[in-house]
Amino acid sequence: MNPFRFQNPTALYYGKGQLEQHLVEEIRKYGNKVLLLYGGGSIKRFGLYDKVIHLLREGSIEWVELAGVEPNPRLTTVHKGIDLCKTEGVHLILAVGGGSVLDCAKAIAMGVKFDGEVYDIYQRKAVAKDALPIGTILTLAATGSEMNSGGVITNWETKEKLGGGSPYTFPKFSFCDAENTFTVPRDQTIYGICDMLAHCYEHYFHPTENAPLQRRLIESVIKTIIENARKVIDEPTNYEARETIMYCSTMALNGMISMGIEGDWANHAMEHEISAIYDIPHGGGLAILFPHWMDFVSQEKPERFADLAVHVFGINPAGKSTSQLAAEGIEKVREFYRSIEVPQRLADYQIGSENLERMAEQSVRFGEIGKYRKLNKNDVLRILQAAL
Amino acid sequence: MNPFRFQNPTALYYGKGQLEQHLVEEIRKYGNKVLLLYGGGSIKRFGLYDKVIHLLREGSIEWVELAGVEPNPRLTTVHKGIDLCKTEGVHLILAVGGGSVLDCAKAIAMGVKFDGEVYDIYQRKAVAKDALPIGTILTLAATGSEMNSGGVITNWETKEKLGGGSPYTFPKFSFCDAENTFTVPRDQTIYGICDMLAHCYEHYFHPTENAPLQRRLIESVIKTIIENARKVIDEPTNYEARETIMYCSTMALNGMISMGIEGDWANHAMEHEISAIYDIPHGGGLAILFPHWMDFVSQEKPERFADLAVHVFGINPAGKSTSQLAAEGIEKVREFYRSIEVPQRLADYQIGSENLERMAEQSVRFGEIGKYRKLNKNDVLRILQAAL
Repeated sequence: MNPFRFQNPTALYYGKGQLEQHLVEEIRKYGNKVLLLYGGGSIKRFGLYDKVIHLLREGSIEWVELAGVEPNPRLTTVHKGIDLCKTEGVHLILAVGGGSVLDCAKAIAMGVKFDGEVYDIYQRKAVAKDALPIGTILTLAATGSEMNSGGVITNWETKEKLGGGSPYTFPKFSFCDAENTFTVPRDQTIYGICDMLAHCYEHYFHPTENAPLQRRLIESVIKTIIENARKVIDEPTNYEARETIMYCSTMALNGMISMGIEGDWANHAMEHEISAIYDIPHGGGLAILFPHWMDFVSQEKPERFADLAVHVFGINPAGKSTSQLAAEGIEKVREFYRSIEVPQRLADYQIGSENLERMAEQSVRFGEIGKYRKLNKNDVLRILQAAL
Repeated sequence: MNPFRFQNPTALYYGKGQLEQHLVEEIRKYGNKVLLLYGGGSIKRFGLYDKVIHLLREGSIEWVELAGVEPNPRLTTVHKGIDLCKTEGVHLILAVGGGSVLDCAKAIAMGVKFDGEVYDIYQRKAVAKDALPIGTILTLAATGSEMNSGGVITNWETKEKLGGGSPYTFPKFSFCDAENTFTVPRDQTIYGICDMLAHCYEHYFHPTENAPLQRRLIESVIKTIIENARKVIDEPTNYEARETIMYCSTMALNGMISMGIEGDWANHAMEHEISAIYDIPHGGGLAILFPHWMDFVSQEKPERFADLAVHVFGINPAGKSTSQLAAEGIEKVREFYRSIEVPQRLADYQIGSENLERMAEQSVRFGEIGKYRKLNKNDVLRILQAAL
């Protein structure tokens, strides 16, 4: 494995009743005034908003609200949040929602403590030196944002979607109660599964030697997601399945299964360019891209795809070449995506060839992407064309 | 899974060159005077002492030393350390060694900030409210103490060996360079393997429903330990194998594979009573006890032992009963212990039946032990007798 420094300070709460018992106590460590940040209002429809407000009121915590954080959260919303925090003297941002709300909170948190345009941090022109504390109440199993320091912001003026973060943007605490995901619509549940699975794949395809435990830990998460996916889709109020999937999403991107390995992340880079232009669901874009990326990359480097076939999908390697195993593994990946009824091609989102060139260009604007196999603009273009 | 709160704030460094680059920077976050705590002097023989002293001097960090921490560290040594820290105004304890030195550091750290006898915390008569910061440089892969908040202290006056800790005793940082374990003697290497494996087993045998990912994560660590054990024993300077084993030891007891499950820990409770009287190696005691505990417990609850057989040892379950599978799994556990040439019976340490009654009595002095299956004094006695 590579030399590494790992530190993840988030206090992670799982289970029923934790919010009621510990929310106020956790907030109080940082102050008594919060920005309550949320999305399109589903938390109001399903009672979570009322529950949180009640707890804040009982705990004598003041709050101001910013609602309407978009899926693929926008820079304009981040700016609103920064202004509000500064004007109101907020001590902590309490993000209630899915990955988009949490990612937006991280951008706001850095922006409040940053003297300049926060988007510079996402454009890699600046580095955050501090951030307002963040706490989260998760309502969607997908991004892992509840226990990591990263997030993605979309700039609609420039049609850019960029990831960023800092050691200061780990949530101080996160509350994960699977009951809060019971009302997640079927398509969002499916996209969430695609997203957490994509995080596992990004880790799994790494160029690092000697990481046998990491390989197994990642396989453990992939297998558990695949085993439970159908169940949460068919039985949205199955607590056990919802909790298992939620826990997989946290573990897929909190750094614990990927210490000392350098994940690939080319698919995320490509997908961000697609959804920056078309505003499609991130998980859907990833599900479309991965099999095509796998086809492309496995031609030259089939080894890890063969591992996937054997250790995740249980394919018997006897008498098969590495390439054969890789092909069978990738077919299993496709089969799983088909089984959860996620789009298979860009055309399913009415995306044609009109912007492929531009997306390929933008994907590599900070340099070649991918660690397992480096991709240049032309490679990206071929993968996107295959995905049409 | 059970509701849980997980937080592990330790900054974990793995790999070559990390100490040289980051030790001083990490210490400086807490002050400029350290207690350098170490054991029998092997760090002097193998050059690590000189390297650390050089770094401290270059970094203008003052230090005082306490050497001679025992395997199974003693309360008397803890008291010495507390006095020294108080007299000298130490800001951080830098523990250089294996689990014993690290555990001793934790006791000292709590003692410095505790108004009273620190042993009360281990006797569960008091709770730590604060602790001096701790940093560690690990030289033995075994206990996982480098990334958890617990430790074990032996009181020779009362022949008690008790575990304790607090949220304040997570090391602030830990440096794990596998090269520092190249010189670990063969028997210590073997005992270390037994210890980390025991931590996995303690987690694996839990009564908690619905923890499929946790089960797989634990199995991942067990399999990786078993695969690499022979290699580190036979090739003590094999960097890859030493690193993999070291990483397994950290992951086996940093809480990451056991969130939301309630480990058994009966074997640790029993072993502590044996080594409190006989001062045998902790890992050796555990290796003796586990198969006998497994025999005893699996008669009533064979399910998890059958899981172990199938998912860790790859036994084909076709046509076999749960009990049959359990028995085959336990035989594999025995086989592994035999393969690494660890003692199989208490008699191998010249332990007879003279103190069994007392050890059984002491094991359960805080109540019945074990979570997968509760054990009373009589149960413990039967297991100890089987292990004679």
